[in-house]
Amino acid sequence: MVILIQCPDSIGLVAKVASLLQDNGLNIVSMREHVDKAQGRFFARVQTEGEVYAARLHVSLAAALPEGADIRVNPSPEKRITVLVTKEYHCLSDILVRNHFGTLGATVCKVIGNHSVLGNICNRFGVPFVHLPTEGKTKEAFEEEILGWIEYDGPDWIVLAKFMRILSPSFVAKFPLRIINIHHSFLPAFVGANPYKQAFERGVKLIGATAHFVTDNLDEGPIIAQQINPVDHTHTTQDMVKAGKEIETAVLAKALRLVCDDKVFVFQNKTVVFE
Amino acid sequence: MVILIQCPDSIGLVAKVASLLQDNGLNIVSMREHVDKAQGRFFARVQTEGEVYAARLHVSLAAALPEGADIRVNPSPEKRITVLVTKEYHCLSDILVRNHFGTLGATVCKVIGNHSVLGNICNRFGVPFVHLPTEGKTKEAFEEEILGWIEYDGPDWIVLAKFMRILSPSFVAKFPLRIINIHHSFLPAFVGANPYKQAFERGVKLIGATAHFVTDNLDEGPIIAQQINPVDHTHTTQDMVKAGKEIETAVLAKALRLVCDDKVFVFQNKTVVFE
Amino acid sequence: MVILIQCPDSIGLVAKVASLLQDNGLNIVSMREHVDKAQGRFFARVQTEGEVYAARLHVSLAAALPEGADIRVNPSPEKRITVLVTKEYHCLSDILVRNHFGTLGATVCKVIGNHSVLGNICNRFGVPFVHLPTEGKTKEAFEEEILGWIEYDGPDWIVLAKFMRILSPSFVAKFPLRIINIHHSFLPAFVGANPYKQAFERGVKLIGATAHFVTDNLDEGPIIAQQINPVDHTHTTQDMVKAGKEIETAVLAKALRLVCDDKVFVFQNKTVVFE
Amino acid sequence: MVILIQCPDSIGLVAKVASLLQDNGLNIVSMREHVDKAQGRFFARVQTEGEVYAARLHVSLAAALPEGADIRVNPSPEKRITVLVTKEYHCLSDILVRNHFGTLGATVCKVIGNHSVLGNICNRFGVPFVHLPTEGKTKEAFEEEILGWIEYDGPDWIVLAKFMRILSPSFVAKFPLRIINIHHSFLPAFVGANPYKQAFERGVKLIGATAHFVTDNLDEGPIIAQQINPVDHTHTTQDMVKAGKEIETAVLAKALRLVCDDKVFVFQNKTVVFE
Repeated sequence: MVILIQCPDSIGLVAKVASLLQDNGLNIVSMREHVDKAQGRFFARVQTEGEVYAARLHVSLAAALPEGADIRVNPSPEKRITVLVTKEYHCLSDILVRNHFGTLGATVCKVIGNHSVLGNICNRFGVPFVHLPTEGKTKEAFEEEILGWIEYDGPDWIVLAKFMRILSPSFVAKFPLRIINIHHSFLPAFVGANPYKQAFERGVKLIGATAHFVTDNLDEGPIIAQQINPVDHTHTTQDMVKAGKEIETAVLAKALRLVCDDKVFVFQNKTVVFE
Repeated sequence: MVILIQCPDSIGLVAKVASLLQDNGLNIVSMREHVDKAQGRFFARVQTEGEVYAARLHVSLAAALPEGADIRVNPSPEKRITVLVTKEYHCLSDILVRNHFGTLGATVCKVIGNHSVLGNICNRFGVPFVHLPTEGKTKEAFEEEILGWIEYDGPDWIVLAKFMRILSPSFVAKFPLRIINIHHSFLPAFVGANPYKQAFERGVKLIGATAHFVTDNLDEGPIIAQQINPVDHTHTTQDMVKAGKEIETAVLAKALRLVCDDKVFVFQNKTVVFE
Repeated sequence: MVILIQCPDSIGLVAKVASLLQDNGLNIVSMREHVDKAQGRFFARVQTEGEVYAARLHVSLAAALPEGADIRVNPSPEKRITVLVTKEYHCLSDILVRNHFGTLGATVCKVIGNHSVLGNICNRFGVPFVHLPTEGKTKEAFEEEILGWIEYDGPDWIVLAKFMRILSPSFVAKFPLRIINIHHSFLPAFVGANPYKQAFERGVKLIGATAHFVTDNLDEGPIIAQQINPVDHTHTTQDMVKAGKEIETAVLAKALRLVCDDKVFVFQNKTVVFE
Repeated sequence: MVILIQCPDSIGLVAKVASLLQDNGLNIVSMREHVDKAQGRFFARVQTEGEVYAARLHVSLAAALPEGADIRVNPSPEKRITVLVTKEYHCLSDILVRNHFGTLGATVCKVIGNHSVLGNICNRFGVPFVHLPTEGKTKEAFEEEILGWIEYDGPDWIVLAKFMRILSPSFVAKFPLRIINIHHSFLPAFVGANPYKQAFERGVKLIGATAHFVTDNLDEGPIIAQQINPVDHTHTTQDMVKAGKEIETAVLAKALRLVCDDKVFVFQNKTVVFE
């Protein structure tokens, strides 16, 4: 059983949680907690052995913890994701392979592309692909269509695996902390379009990628994972793009694993990640 | 207050420890615990706020925890180390600089060298240096001299900062888990002498360094920290030695910081490190 | 045009090669050279612009360079590989995805498995899969079958993508420097079987993977690429295996890219890699 | 002998340079060249064996190469640097240690501090320290004083080892590509003051440091070297500062080594580094 708690900090929280779980007949296999001193915020992830009604435990915890505590007892072990793509195959293929072999930590219920080119790889893995072209549609209409499919599937998370359209604030607002994006740079360096061109022109010696939750502010949502790779003067912009794809794939895979394993908390635009 | 616990695992240990600290009027600021399932071993490091008699808390914990528990309440905040060296300056200099500016996490009470060459740098920092040549002495006599100085100073740890003599089992046995060595390779690759020559001849693409506690078996004690650096065909053995010195310095510094911050546990030749 | 040269070192080789290419109407776009001083060996990789008959250039170079020079003018730009697998999907899937999208640097002409389980993923990508069970066969007979398929396809390289059988010296001898293996450890640490179990028991803080050419001596062939990932006390052997798969995939992909781009030379069991 | 060449690219430059050196009786031990296709710029670093008058070789090269070529034959092997500091000891101490043991690649002729606190460590190493307080002076007057000392010493480079004052454009203009700074972030992320606070607030998972040449635009000069270290939610701003110091020290040391070994070229605000 996995228990996630986030609440205002107060004296004795670890002892309180540990005792309560113990009293409910649960043995703590592992417990990770963190106190954000600056914000006065408490975070805990507990893995337990033993049998107990999740709903009853939830009630006990809510009664014991400070008001406004965010408590999740045994979040669904069967995660589902919808993936949005454009034309690039690398992140999507990695997700499809892991999905196929059951090591993704989630099930891909659908892939939606604003171009059709990635339909083929989805078909090969027997994963439904929906082509939603943007041509001749308002942004609103386009997003309305995406929305329809997402509401139909009801995924836990929407994954932007190199989806090259900017989602409107009203769309994003419907899925708070449920949209995950892979950004092709070491944020906050090179916000926005064409980061590898920017990186090339600046002559950096490292390039990176950032997986983050999507919020209203483009590229400014809570960061889940980041990695870098060395580059040098021999790298053209195209070489950087190529090297970048390798990191993008790795970083998005890592972020999805962390999120699907219920190891990521968010508060005030920052994440707490119990790796 | 820092509390370190290591004991056989049993049901409810986290709850037990947390409640007991709470009952003693301590607030848990941070708690890191680990259960080694394979060995049935429990490890915890707790940082608390609040006032309590260390001795009384120790008694309470000992009463509550399984027999044979290793409990340390507030290990001495004023750590002291003795450093053994031969001729290479890089690790020693780094230690002396941190010692000088008060950021080592320990105080260097003495440096002992089997050569005299590093006396100069010690003098510059006002750190006592003792030259103990090995010439014309049995190994036993040589180690007897070292022993004399160590017993005089009573350091918490003995740090082998590129000390190129192998200590006898009887010497090592006197300081269980209190001797820290920096080995110039990514153990267990290249055990023994001249690892960079071995690395060069094998044509490896990464070289590394390992900080570990010293036990009877040469280079086989519990590993505290390891790092690597890329190398390639352009590196001669000498280049590898040079690159290796940078990593050796960094890894030993990291290991000392972890050990001095009471973040390292040892059980069955392996470490648990709460970074 | 790509020109690869390996020969005994002698005075003036760079000038000689550069002038000769110039005299043949070729402009040098990039030139990488290396002299192994210890072995007295010269290596060069030159990329040129301009038109010239490859055969004639080869003759000119052979006449100008020291006897015994290994010269390759414009190695086939259409590389082909045969992949040998057992049950693990991660390296193979990565290769199949890159092959499918044309970014592998080679074409997979066939996958041969001693188990049938990976046939499915090959079928999905339309890549021929041959199941060669070992049951009821001598090693000799088994290898004879592999040999038949390889001779039929005539690949440039044979890639062992987690192929868990040890090939006999006589098989290996047929393909000098043409068999590439991914070994699940940071060689030379943990040679042989079950390296992650060894790594777990040794309590290392980094795990790695090594891509190398296969020679008679198990796990001792020339190293092409190596990478590592940090691990700690929370990693079980299974966690290390899981983390290891990510590095294995990345390292094998990198090694294949380097080899297919004609950037790897071998001499005396070591590689020269012009990344 | 080391020969550095930078000039507009044209057909046959490698052959031309190689032949010319050969004709002058020099054997090429190693040659690294790079063509920046986008800018049409050629860079080469050649290491040779043999005896020749540097001045005569310079004339020959200038005659053979395109107009405007920047040619340096055997740049002074005895590099000298002046170090500017404020209060932080880590970068300076590392430089002083390497200077003391003769492994810096340059000699520190003087340390200038706008605070006095680092005078002590300089004295311990017998390196002249000049305290130039800023109080009661215009920026112009302050820089005039620095200038006096620099003109007196005539160093090859001025190293800003955590010098917390911004130098005026007119000062910088006097030393084009001769001022090296260590910036406490992975540029271009977190330009300007207090980058670790910015990094903490943004919740990044990696922090970095950048060594670069100083130009008119603050933090925008050509990048020489960059490195990063992982951080997580447990890092306070202060922890990030601490972790950052380790990288700053390492990156500045690496940049100085590269620059002193004549391995760094600059063109159009970017570096070419022949590591």
